[in-house]
Amino acid sequence: MTFAEQLRAVQQKSNSLLCVGLDTDIRKLPAGLPATSAGVLDFNRQIIEATHDLACAYKINLAFTETLGRDSWDTLYRTLEAIPPGVITIADGKRGDIGNSAAMYARAIIDDLHFTASTVHPYMGYDSIQPFDRPEGHGVFVLAVTSNPGARDFQYLKVRGKTLYEHVIARVKKWNTSGNFGLVVGATRPRDLKKVRSLVPAMPLLIPGIGAQGGDVRQVVQYGCDREGLSAVINASRSILYASSESDFPRAARLAAMTLRDEINAWREKLF
Amino acid sequence: MTFAEQLRAVQQKSNSLLCVGLDTDIRKLPAGLPATSAGVLDFNRQIIEATHDLACAYKINLAFTETLGRDSWDTLYRTLEAIPPGVITIADGKRGDIGNSAAMYARAIIDDLHFTASTVHPYMGYDSIQPFDRPEGHGVFVLAVTSNPGARDFQYLKVRGKTLYEHVIARVKKWNTSGNFGLVVGATRPRDLKKVRSLVPAMPLLIPGIGAQGGDVRQVVQYGCDREGLSAVINASRSILYASSESDFPRAARLAAMTLRDEINAWREKLF
Repeated sequence: MTFAEQLRAVQQKSNSLLCVGLDTDIRKLPAGLPATSAGVLDFNRQIIEATHDLACAYKINLAFTETLGRDSWDTLYRTLEAIPPGVITIADGKRGDIGNSAAMYARAIIDDLHFTASTVHPYMGYDSIQPFDRPEGHGVFVLAVTSNPGARDFQYLKVRGKTLYEHVIARVKKWNTSGNFGLVVGATRPRDLKKVRSLVPAMPLLIPGIGAQGGDVRQVVQYGCDREGLSAVINASRSILYASSESDFPRAARLAAMTLRDEINAWREKLF
Repeated sequence: MTFAEQLRAVQQKSNSLLCVGLDTDIRKLPAGLPATSAGVLDFNRQIIEATHDLACAYKINLAFTETLGRDSWDTLYRTLEAIPPGVITIADGKRGDIGNSAAMYARAIIDDLHFTASTVHPYMGYDSIQPFDRPEGHGVFVLAVTSNPGARDFQYLKVRGKTLYEHVIARVKKWNTSGNFGLVVGATRPRDLKKVRSLVPAMPLLIPGIGAQGGDVRQVVQYGCDREGLSAVINASRSILYASSESDFPRAARLAAMTLRDEINAWREKLF
Protein backbone atom coordinates (compact mmCIF):
# COMPACT_ATOMS: atom_id res chain seq x y z
CA MET A 1 0.00 0.00 0.00
CA THR A 2 1.34 3.46 -0.81
CA PHE A 3 1.61 6.00 1.99
CA ALA A 4 -1.13 8.11 0.38
CA GLU A 5 -3.51 5.13 0.47
CA GLN A 6 -2.53 4.22 4.01
CA LEU A 7 -3.19 7.77 5.20
CA ARG A 8 -6.63 7.90 3.59
CA ALA A 9 -7.54 4.55 5.14
CA VAL A 10 -6.45 5.67 8.61
CA GLN A 11 -8.31 8.96 8.26
CA GLN A 12 -11.50 7.21 7.17
CA LYS A 13 -11.31 4.65 9.94
CA SER A 14 -10.54 7.20 12.68
CA ASN A 15 -12.86 9.80 11.16
CA SER A 16 -10.17 12.34 11.92
CA LEU A 17 -7.69 14.56 10.09
CA LEU A 18 -6.16 15.70 13.37
CA CYS A 19 -2.47 15.22 14.03
CA VAL A 20 -1.28 15.80 17.58
CA GLY A 21 2.18 17.36 17.59
CA LEU A 22 4.27 15.98 20.45
CA ASP A 23 6.59 18.99 20.75
CA THR A 24 7.05 18.26 24.42
CA ASP A 25 9.14 20.91 26.13
CA ILE A 26 10.71 19.64 29.34
CA ARG A 27 10.41 23.16 30.79
CA LYS A 28 6.67 23.33 30.19
CA LEU A 29 5.46 20.14 31.88
CA PRO A 30 2.30 20.57 33.97
CA ALA A 31 2.28 20.72 37.73
CA GLY A 32 3.05 17.33 39.31
CA LEU A 33 5.40 16.05 36.61
CA PRO A 34 9.16 16.26 37.20
CA ALA A 35 11.25 18.23 34.69
CA THR A 36 13.14 15.08 33.68
CA SER A 37 13.05 12.75 30.71
CA ALA A 38 10.86 10.41 32.79
CA GLY A 39 8.49 13.34 33.21
CA VAL A 40 8.46 13.93 29.45
CA LEU A 41 7.71 10.26 28.77
CA ASP A 42 4.97 10.21 31.38
CA PHE A 43 3.48 13.37 29.86
CA ASN A 44 3.65 11.96 26.30
CA ARG A 45 2.01 8.70 27.43
CA GLN A 46 -0.82 10.52 29.17
CA ILE A 47 -1.38 12.81 26.17
CA ILE A 48 -1.46 9.79 23.83
CA GLU A 49 -3.78 7.87 26.16
CA ALA A 50 -6.12 10.87 26.25
CA THR A 51 -6.16 11.60 22.50
CA HIS A 52 -5.35 8.48 20.47
CA ASP A 53 -8.95 7.78 19.43
CA LEU A 54 -9.26 11.37 18.19
CA ALA A 55 -6.20 11.60 15.96
CA CYS A 56 -5.10 10.08 12.65
CA ALA A 57 -1.46 10.84 13.45
CA TYR A 58 1.14 11.94 15.94
CA LYS A 59 4.01 14.13 14.85
CA ILE A 60 7.08 13.95 17.03
CA ASN A 61 9.37 16.93 16.83
CA LEU A 62 12.90 15.54 17.06
CA ALA A 63 14.27 18.95 18.07
CA PHE A 64 12.49 18.64 21.40
CA THR A 65 13.52 15.04 21.99
CA GLU A 66 17.17 15.88 21.34
CA THR A 67 17.26 18.26 24.30
CA LEU A 68 16.91 15.19 26.55
CA GLY A 69 20.49 14.21 25.81
CA ARG A 70 21.39 10.59 26.58
CA ASP A 71 17.72 9.81 27.37
CA SER A 72 16.43 11.15 24.08
CA TRP A 73 16.47 7.86 22.21
CA ASP A 74 14.68 5.83 24.89
CA THR A 75 12.12 8.56 25.42
CA LEU A 76 11.43 8.60 21.68
CA TYR A 77 11.31 4.82 21.48
CA ARG A 78 8.94 4.44 24.42
CA THR A 79 6.74 7.31 23.28
CA LEU A 80 6.36 5.51 19.95
CA GLU A 81 5.52 2.28 21.78
CA ALA A 82 2.63 4.08 23.49
CA ILE A 83 1.03 5.00 20.15
CA PRO A 84 -1.48 2.32 19.09
CA PRO A 85 -0.78 0.50 15.81
CA GLY A 86 -2.79 1.94 12.93
CA VAL A 87 -2.08 5.55 13.90
CA ILE A 88 0.39 7.37 11.62
CA THR A 89 3.66 8.45 13.27
CA ILE A 90 5.59 11.32 11.71
CA ALA A 91 9.28 11.94 12.52
CA ASP A 92 9.43 15.71 12.24
CA GLY A 93 13.17 16.08 11.96
CA LYS A 94 13.36 18.04 8.69
CA ARG A 95 16.39 16.03 7.60
CA GLY A 96 18.40 16.65 4.45
CA ASP A 97 21.95 15.57 3.61
CA ILE A 98 23.93 13.96 0.79
CA GLY A 99 22.91 10.45 -0.24
CA ASN A 100 24.98 8.30 2.12
CA SER A 101 24.17 10.51 5.12
CA ALA A 102 20.49 10.67 4.20
CA ALA A 103 20.52 6.87 4.13
CA MET A 104 21.76 6.92 7.75
CA TYR A 105 19.02 9.32 8.86
CA ALA A 106 16.46 7.10 7.13
CA ARG A 107 17.89 4.02 8.81
CA ALA A 108 17.49 5.56 12.28
CA ILE A 109 13.99 6.90 11.62
CA ILE A 110 12.54 4.05 9.59
CA ASP A 111 14.46 0.85 10.36
CA ASP A 112 15.22 1.45 14.04
CA LEU A 113 12.32 3.61 15.25
CA HIS A 114 9.67 2.42 12.75
CA PHE A 115 8.11 5.82 12.10
CA THR A 116 5.44 5.79 9.36
CA ALA A 117 6.53 9.12 7.82
CA SER A 118 9.22 11.82 7.91
CA THR A 119 9.67 15.49 7.09
CA VAL A 120 12.62 16.45 4.83
CA HIS A 121 14.27 19.59 3.44
CA PRO A 122 14.28 20.05 -0.35
CA TYR A 123 17.41 22.25 -0.74
CA MET A 124 19.89 19.40 -1.40
CA GLY A 125 17.67 17.72 -3.99
CA TYR A 126 16.68 14.20 -4.90
CA ASP A 127 19.53 12.08 -3.56
CA SER A 128 19.04 13.71 -0.13
CA ILE A 129 15.39 12.59 -0.08
CA GLN A 130 15.31 9.31 -2.00
CA PRO A 131 16.48 7.11 0.93
CA PHE A 132 13.22 7.95 2.76
CA ASP A 133 11.07 6.73 -0.15
CA ARG A 134 10.72 3.05 0.75
CA PRO A 135 8.86 0.31 -1.14
CA GLU A 136 6.98 -0.57 2.06
CA GLY A 137 5.31 2.85 1.93
CA HIS A 138 7.09 5.33 4.20
CA GLY A 139 5.60 8.84 3.90
CA VAL A 140 8.01 11.56 2.73
CA PHE A 141 6.74 15.06 3.51
CA VAL A 142 8.92 17.58 1.67
CA LEU A 143 8.91 21.18 2.97
CA ALA A 144 7.11 23.43 0.48
CA VAL A 145 5.62 26.49 2.22
CA THR A 146 6.40 26.71 5.92
CA SER A 147 4.35 28.47 8.61
CA ASN A 148 7.14 30.64 10.06
CA PRO A 149 8.10 34.25 9.22
CA GLY A 150 11.37 33.08 7.59
CA ALA A 151 9.33 31.35 4.86
CA ARG A 152 9.43 34.74 3.10
CA ASP A 153 13.22 34.69 2.79
CA PHE A 154 13.47 32.12 -0.01
CA GLN A 155 10.26 30.16 -0.61
CA TYR A 156 8.58 32.98 -2.55
CA LEU A 157 11.53 33.91 -4.76
CA LYS A 158 10.36 33.97 -8.38
CA VAL A 159 11.93 31.50 -10.81
CA ARG A 160 10.61 31.81 -14.38
CA GLY A 161 7.40 33.44 -13.10
CA LYS A 162 6.77 30.86 -10.40
CA THR A 163 7.69 30.76 -6.73
CA LEU A 164 10.52 28.56 -5.54
CA TYR A 165 8.03 26.47 -3.59
CA GLU A 166 6.11 25.75 -6.81
CA HIS A 167 9.35 24.49 -8.33
CA VAL A 168 9.85 22.27 -5.29
CA ILE A 169 6.34 20.90 -5.82
CA ALA A 170 6.96 20.29 -9.52
CA ARG A 171 10.02 18.21 -8.64
CA VAL A 172 8.23 16.30 -5.90
CA LYS A 173 5.47 15.41 -8.38
CA LYS A 174 8.12 13.99 -10.71
CA TRP A 175 9.78 12.02 -7.91
CA ASN A 176 6.50 10.64 -6.66
CA THR A 177 6.29 7.48 -8.74
CA SER A 178 5.81 5.51 -5.51
CA GLY A 179 2.78 7.33 -4.10
CA ASN A 180 4.75 7.97 -0.89
CA PHE A 181 5.45 11.68 -1.23
CA GLY A 182 3.64 14.49 0.52
CA LEU A 183 4.24 18.19 1.16
CA VAL A 184 4.44 20.43 4.23
CA VAL A 185 2.33 23.57 3.87
CA GLY A 186 1.79 26.00 6.75
CA ALA A 187 -1.78 26.66 7.91
CA THR A 188 -0.84 30.31 8.29
CA ARG A 189 -0.70 30.65 4.48
CA PRO A 190 -4.20 29.77 3.20
CA ARG A 191 -3.76 31.28 -0.27
CA ASP A 192 -0.66 29.19 -0.83
CA LEU A 193 -2.41 26.13 0.57
CA LYS A 194 -5.16 26.59 -2.03
CA LYS A 195 -2.60 26.88 -4.78
CA VAL A 196 -0.67 23.84 -3.57
CA ARG A 197 -3.82 21.70 -3.44
CA SER A 198 -4.64 22.73 -7.04
CA LEU A 199 -1.17 21.54 -8.07
CA VAL A 200 -1.38 18.18 -6.24
CA PRO A 201 -5.07 17.19 -6.07
CA ALA A 202 -4.52 13.94 -4.17
CA MET A 203 -1.16 14.18 -2.43
CA PRO A 204 -0.93 14.05 1.40
CA LEU A 205 -0.37 17.51 2.88
CA LEU A 206 1.02 17.97 6.37
CA ILE A 207 -0.38 21.27 7.64
CA PRO A 208 1.13 22.70 10.83
CA GLY A 209 0.29 26.12 12.25
CA ILE A 210 -3.24 25.64 13.62
CA GLY A 211 -3.75 26.82 17.19
CA ALA A 212 -0.78 28.65 18.72
CA GLN A 213 0.45 29.81 15.30
CA GLY A 214 -2.97 31.17 14.32
CA GLY A 215 -4.06 29.19 11.21
CA ASP A 216 -7.81 29.21 10.38
CA VAL A 217 -9.58 25.82 10.56
CA ARG A 218 -12.20 26.47 7.87
CA GLN A 219 -9.61 27.55 5.31
CA VAL A 220 -7.32 24.66 6.17
CA VAL A 221 -10.11 22.14 5.58
CA GLN A 222 -11.47 23.89 2.49
CA TYR A 223 -8.12 24.33 0.78
CA GLY A 224 -6.07 21.50 2.31
CA CYS A 225 -8.25 18.43 1.70
CA ASP A 226 -8.48 16.34 -1.43
CA ARG A 227 -11.83 16.04 -3.25
CA GLU A 228 -13.19 13.63 -0.68
CA GLY A 229 -12.25 15.67 2.34
CA LEU A 230 -9.17 13.57 3.13
CA SER A 231 -5.35 13.65 2.71
CA ALA A 232 -4.84 16.76 4.85
CA VAL A 233 -2.98 16.05 8.08
CA ILE A 234 -3.85 19.01 10.30
CA ASN A 235 -1.36 19.41 13.10
CA ALA A 236 -1.84 21.17 16.41
CA SER A 237 0.81 21.00 19.13
CA ARG A 238 0.89 23.61 21.86
CA SER A 239 -2.88 24.26 21.94
CA ILE A 240 -3.44 20.59 22.84
CA LEU A 241 -0.32 19.76 24.90
CA TYR A 242 -0.56 22.82 27.11
CA ALA A 243 -4.33 23.20 27.26
CA SER A 244 -3.90 23.03 31.02
CA SER A 245 -0.78 23.49 33.12
CA GLU A 246 -2.36 21.64 36.03
CA SER A 247 -2.78 17.94 36.80
CA ASP A 248 -6.02 17.86 34.76
CA PHE A 249 -3.94 18.27 31.59
CA PRO A 250 -4.98 14.93 30.01
CA ARG A 251 -8.66 15.90 30.24
CA ALA A 252 -7.93 19.40 28.96
CA ALA A 253 -5.84 17.99 26.09
CA ARG A 254 -8.63 15.57 25.22
CA LEU A 255 -11.16 18.38 25.21
CA ALA A 256 -8.94 20.59 23.02
CA ALA A 257 -8.27 17.70 20.60
CA MET A 258 -11.93 16.72 20.44
CA THR A 259 -13.05 20.30 19.84
CA LEU A 260 -10.56 20.71 17.02
CA ARG A 261 -11.36 17.33 15.46
CA ASP A 262 -15.06 18.12 15.59
CA GLU A 263 -14.56 21.59 14.13
CA ILE A 264 -12.53 20.03 11.29
CA ASN A 265 -15.21 17.39 10.73
CA ALA A 266 -18.03 19.95 10.77
CA TRP A 267 -16.31 21.84 7.96
CA ARG A 268 -15.64 18.59 6.10
CA GLU A 269 -19.36 17.76 6.24
CA LYS A 270 -20.33 21.22 5.07
CA LEU A 271 -17.76 21.46 2.30
CA PHE A 272 -17.36 17.91 0.93
CA MET B 1 35.83 36.76 19.58
CA THR B 2 33.71 36.13 16.47
CA PHE B 3 33.69 32.66 15.00
CA ALA B 4 35.51 33.96 11.90
CA GLU B 5 38.35 35.29 14.09
CA GLN B 6 38.45 32.13 16.18
CA LEU B 7 38.75 29.98 13.06
CA ARG B 8 41.59 32.04 11.63
CA ALA B 9 43.45 31.88 14.94
CA VAL B 10 43.09 28.10 15.14
CA GLN B 11 44.17 27.68 11.52
CA GLN B 12 47.25 29.84 12.05
CA LYS B 13 48.23 28.09 15.26
CA SER B 14 47.72 24.57 13.86
CA ASN B 15 49.07 25.55 10.43
CA SER B 16 46.25 23.51 8.97
CA LEU B 17 43.03 24.03 7.01
CA LEU B 18 42.20 20.34 7.26
CA CYS B 19 38.94 19.21 8.82
CA VAL B 20 38.59 15.51 9.58
CA GLY B 21 35.01 14.35 9.01
CA LEU B 22 34.00 11.78 11.60
CA ASP B 23 31.33 10.08 9.48
CA THR B 24 31.95 6.84 11.30
CA ASP B 25 29.90 4.00 9.85
CA ILE B 26 29.45 1.15 12.32
CA ARG B 27 29.45 -1.29 9.39
CA LYS B 28 32.83 -0.12 8.14
CA LEU B 29 34.98 -0.41 11.25
CA PRO B 30 38.42 -1.93 10.67
CA ALA B 31 39.38 -5.46 11.59
CA GLY B 32 39.64 -5.94 15.35
CA LEU B 33 36.96 -3.43 16.37
CA PRO B 34 33.50 -4.73 17.28
CA ALA B 35 30.51 -3.43 15.28
CA THR B 36 29.04 -1.79 18.39
CA SER B 37 28.80 1.76 19.69
CA ALA B 38 31.81 0.99 21.89
CA GLY B 39 33.66 0.05 18.70
CA VAL B 40 32.64 3.35 17.08
CA LEU B 41 33.83 5.34 20.09
CA ASP B 42 37.11 3.44 20.20
CA PHE B 43 37.58 4.07 16.48
CA ASN B 44 36.78 7.80 16.82
CA ARG B 45 39.21 8.14 19.73
CA GLN B 46 42.01 6.41 17.83
CA ILE B 47 41.37 8.56 14.74
CA ILE B 48 41.40 11.74 16.86
CA GLU B 49 44.54 10.63 18.71
CA ALA B 50 46.25 9.97 15.36
CA THR B 51 45.22 13.21 13.64
CA HIS B 52 44.50 16.00 16.16
CA ASP B 53 47.79 17.84 15.60
CA LEU B 54 47.13 17.85 11.85
CA ALA B 55 43.62 19.29 11.79
CA CYS B 56 42.03 22.65 12.55
CA ALA B 57 38.61 21.01 12.96
CA TYR B 58 36.57 17.84 13.31
CA LYS B 59 33.17 17.63 11.69
CA ILE B 60 30.83 15.10 13.24
CA ASN B 61 28.06 13.90 10.99
CA LEU B 62 25.02 13.49 13.22
CA ALA B 63 23.34 11.19 10.69
CA PHE B 64 25.93 8.52 11.45
CA THR B 65 25.76 8.97 15.21
CA GLU B 66 21.96 8.64 15.17
CA THR B 67 22.20 5.11 13.82
CA LEU B 68 23.64 4.09 17.20
CA GLY B 69 20.22 4.45 18.82
CA ARG B 70 20.23 4.76 22.59
CA ASP B 71 24.04 4.94 22.63
CA SER B 72 24.20 7.79 20.13
CA TRP B 73 24.29 10.61 22.66
CA ASP B 74 27.02 9.13 24.86
CA THR B 75 29.11 8.19 21.84
CA LEU B 76 28.82 11.76 20.58
CA TYR B 77 29.57 13.22 23.99
CA ARG B 78 32.61 11.05 24.59
CA THR B 79 33.91 11.57 21.06
CA LEU B 80 33.77 15.32 21.68
CA GLU B 81 35.61 14.84 24.99
CA ALA B 82 38.46 13.19 23.09
CA ILE B 83 38.98 16.25 20.89
CA PRO B 84 41.59 18.57 22.44
CA PRO B 85 40.43 22.09 23.36
CA GLY B 86 41.36 24.66 20.74
CA VAL B 87 40.28 22.45 17.85
CA ILE B 88 37.04 23.52 16.13
CA THR B 89 34.15 21.02 16.41
CA ILE B 90 31.39 21.17 13.80
CA ALA B 91 27.97 19.55 14.37
CA ASP B 92 27.08 18.54 10.83
CA GLY B 93 23.36 17.99 11.36
CA LYS B 94 22.00 20.34 8.67
CA ARG B 95 19.23 21.48 10.99
CA GLY B 96 16.41 23.84 10.02
CA ASP B 97 13.02 24.31 11.67
CA ILE B 98 10.72 27.11 12.87
CA GLY B 99 12.07 29.41 15.58
CA ASN B 100 11.08 27.54 18.75
CA SER B 101 12.22 24.19 17.34
CA ALA B 102 15.46 25.65 16.02
CA ALA B 103 16.09 26.96 19.53
CA MET B 104 15.81 23.37 20.80
CA TYR B 105 18.26 22.04 18.21
CA ALA B 106 20.65 24.84 19.14
CA ARG B 107 20.27 24.03 22.83
CA ALA B 108 21.24 20.39 22.27
CA ILE B 109 24.17 21.19 19.98
CA ILE B 110 25.55 24.28 21.68
CA ASP B 111 24.50 24.27 25.34
CA ASP B 112 24.57 20.52 26.00
CA LEU B 113 27.24 19.22 23.62
CA HIS B 114 29.36 22.41 23.35
CA PHE B 115 30.08 22.17 19.64
CA THR B 116 31.93 25.19 18.22
CA ALA B 117 29.92 25.33 14.99
CA SER B 118 26.88 23.87 13.17
CA THR B 119 25.60 23.35 9.65
CA VAL B 120 22.05 24.58 8.86
CA HIS B 121 19.56 24.54 5.97
CA PRO B 122 18.52 27.89 4.48
CA TYR B 123 15.05 26.96 3.13
CA MET B 124 13.04 28.07 6.20
CA GLY B 125 14.80 31.42 6.48
CA TYR B 126 16.16 33.61 9.22
CA ASP B 127 14.17 32.54 12.28
CA SER B 128 15.20 28.93 11.63
CA ILE B 129 18.89 29.92 11.77
CA GLN B 130 19.07 32.79 14.22
CA PRO B 131 19.09 30.58 17.39
CA PHE B 132 22.49 29.21 16.31
CA ASP B 133 24.05 32.69 16.10
CA ARG B 134 25.24 33.13 19.66
CA PRO B 135 27.04 36.13 21.20
CA GLU B 136 29.79 33.79 22.45
CA GLY B 137 30.73 33.07 18.84
CA HIS B 138 29.16 29.81 17.60
CA GLY B 139 29.87 29.23 13.90
CA VAL B 140 26.78 28.98 11.66
CA PHE B 141 27.56 27.34 8.31
CA VAL B 142 24.57 27.80 5.99
CA LEU B 143 24.26 25.42 3.04
CA ALA B 144 24.95 27.30 -0.20
CA VAL B 145 26.25 24.95 -2.92
CA THR B 146 26.39 21.32 -1.90
CA SER B 147 28.68 18.62 -3.27
CA ASN B 148 25.99 16.04 -4.17
CA PRO B 149 24.22 15.46 -7.51
CA GLY B 150 20.92 16.77 -6.08
CA ALA B 151 22.49 20.23 -5.75
CA ARG B 152 21.36 20.71 -9.37
CA ASP B 153 17.66 20.36 -8.46
CA PHE B 154 17.18 23.75 -6.79
CA GLN B 155 20.45 25.52 -5.95
CA TYR B 156 21.06 26.69 -9.52
CA LEU B 157 17.54 27.90 -10.29
CA LYS B 158 17.73 31.45 -11.64
CA VAL B 159 16.07 34.23 -9.66
CA ARG B 160 16.40 37.68 -11.28
CA GLY B 161 19.46 36.55 -13.21
CA LYS B 162 21.20 34.99 -10.23
CA THR B 163 21.26 31.45 -8.88
CA LEU B 164 19.25 30.58 -5.79
CA TYR B 165 22.49 29.90 -3.93
CA GLU B 166 23.64 33.46 -4.65
CA HIS B 167 20.41 34.71 -3.09
CA VAL B 168 21.11 32.54 -0.07
CA ILE B 169 24.55 34.12 0.18
CA ALA B 170 23.14 37.65 -0.14
CA ARG B 171 20.83 36.96 2.80
CA VAL B 172 23.57 35.37 4.88
CA LYS B 173 25.73 38.46 4.33
CA LYS B 174 22.89 40.61 5.67
CA TRP B 175 22.36 38.35 8.69
CA ASN B 176 26.06 38.25 9.50
CA THR B 177 26.29 41.27 11.78
CA SER B 178 27.91 39.00 14.40
CA GLY B 179 30.81 37.65 12.35
CA ASN B 180 29.64 34.11 13.14
CA PHE B 181 28.22 33.06 9.79
CA GLY B 182 29.85 30.83 7.22
CA LEU B 183 28.79 28.91 4.12
CA VAL B 184 28.96 25.30 2.95
CA VAL B 185 30.31 24.98 -0.59
CA GLY B 186 31.09 21.61 -2.16
CA ALA B 187 34.66 20.97 -3.33
CA THR B 188 33.20 19.23 -6.38
CA ARG B 189 32.04 22.64 -7.72
CA PRO B 190 35.22 24.75 -8.14
CA ARG B 191 33.66 27.38 -10.40
CA ASP B 192 30.96 28.03 -7.83
CA LEU B 193 33.54 28.05 -5.06
CA LYS B 194 35.42 30.79 -6.91
CA LYS B 195 32.24 32.81 -7.31
CA VAL B 196 31.25 32.33 -3.66
CA ARG B 197 34.67 33.50 -2.45
CA SER B 198 34.36 36.63 -4.61
CA LEU B 199 31.01 37.36 -2.92
CA VAL B 200 32.28 36.80 0.65
CA PRO B 201 36.02 37.64 0.68
CA ALA B 202 36.56 36.86 4.37
CA MET B 203 33.74 34.54 5.47
CA PRO B 204 34.52 31.00 6.72
CA LEU B 205 33.74 28.38 4.08
CA LEU B 206 33.20 24.75 4.99
CA ILE B 207 34.24 22.75 1.94
CA PRO B 208 33.37 19.04 1.89
CA GLY B 209 33.90 16.76 -1.07
CA ILE B 210 37.68 16.29 -1.15
CA GLY B 211 38.84 12.68 -1.37
CA ALA B 212 36.06 10.13 -1.89
CA GLN B 213 33.83 12.68 -3.63
CA GLY B 214 36.61 13.77 -6.00
CA GLY B 215 37.23 17.48 -5.31
CA ASP B 216 40.56 18.93 -6.51
CA VAL B 217 42.92 20.21 -3.78
CA ARG B 218 44.59 22.95 -5.79
CA GLN B 219 41.31 24.51 -6.85
CA VAL B 220 39.85 24.25 -3.36
CA VAL B 221 42.83 26.13 -1.90
CA GLN B 222 43.02 28.66 -4.72
CA TYR B 223 39.33 29.51 -4.77
CA GLY B 224 38.27 28.65 -1.22
CA CYS B 225 40.76 30.61 0.92
CA ASP B 226 40.58 34.25 1.94
CA ARG B 227 43.37 36.65 0.86
CA GLU B 228 45.74 35.30 3.48
CA GLY B 229 45.23 31.65 2.66
CA LEU B 230 42.88 31.06 5.61
CA SER B 231 39.12 30.73 6.37
CA ALA B 232 38.60 27.63 4.21
CA VAL B 233 37.77 24.52 6.25
CA ILE B 234 38.62 21.67 3.92
CA ASN B 235 36.88 18.48 4.97
CA ALA B 236 37.85 14.91 4.13
CA SER B 237 36.05 11.99 5.73
CA ARG B 238 36.17 8.58 4.09
CA SER B 239 39.67 8.98 2.57
CA ILE B 240 41.09 9.45 6.08
CA LEU B 241 38.82 7.24 8.21
CA TYR B 242 39.02 4.24 5.94
CA ALA B 243 42.59 4.65 4.67
CA SER B 244 43.15 1.14 6.00
CA SER B 245 40.63 -1.52 6.96
CA GLU B 246 43.19 -3.31 9.09
CA SER B 247 44.46 -2.73 12.62
CA ASP B 248 47.04 -0.24 11.31
CA PHE B 249 44.18 2.18 10.57
CA PRO B 250 45.41 4.95 12.94
CA ARG B 251 48.76 5.08 11.17
CA ALA B 252 47.10 4.98 7.76
CA ALA B 253 44.66 7.72 8.79
CA ARG B 254 47.52 9.86 10.09
CA LEU B 255 49.42 9.39 6.85
CA ALA B 256 46.37 10.29 4.75
CA ALA B 257 45.64 13.36 6.91
CA MET B 258 49.26 14.50 6.85
CA THR B 259 49.53 14.06 3.10
CA LEU B 260 46.37 16.09 2.54
CA ARG B 261 47.35 18.80 5.03
CA ASP B 262 50.77 19.09 3.40
CA GLU B 263 49.30 19.22 -0.09
CA ILE B 264 46.95 21.98 1.05
CA ASN B 265 49.83 23.87 2.68
CA ALA B 266 52.05 23.49 -0.38
CA TRP B 267 49.36 25.15 -2.50
CA ARG B 268 48.86 27.83 0.16
CA GLU B 269 52.56 28.65 0.03
CA LYS B 270 52.57 28.75 -3.74
CA LEU B 271 49.39 30.79 -4.11
CA PHE B 272 49.30 33.17 -1.10
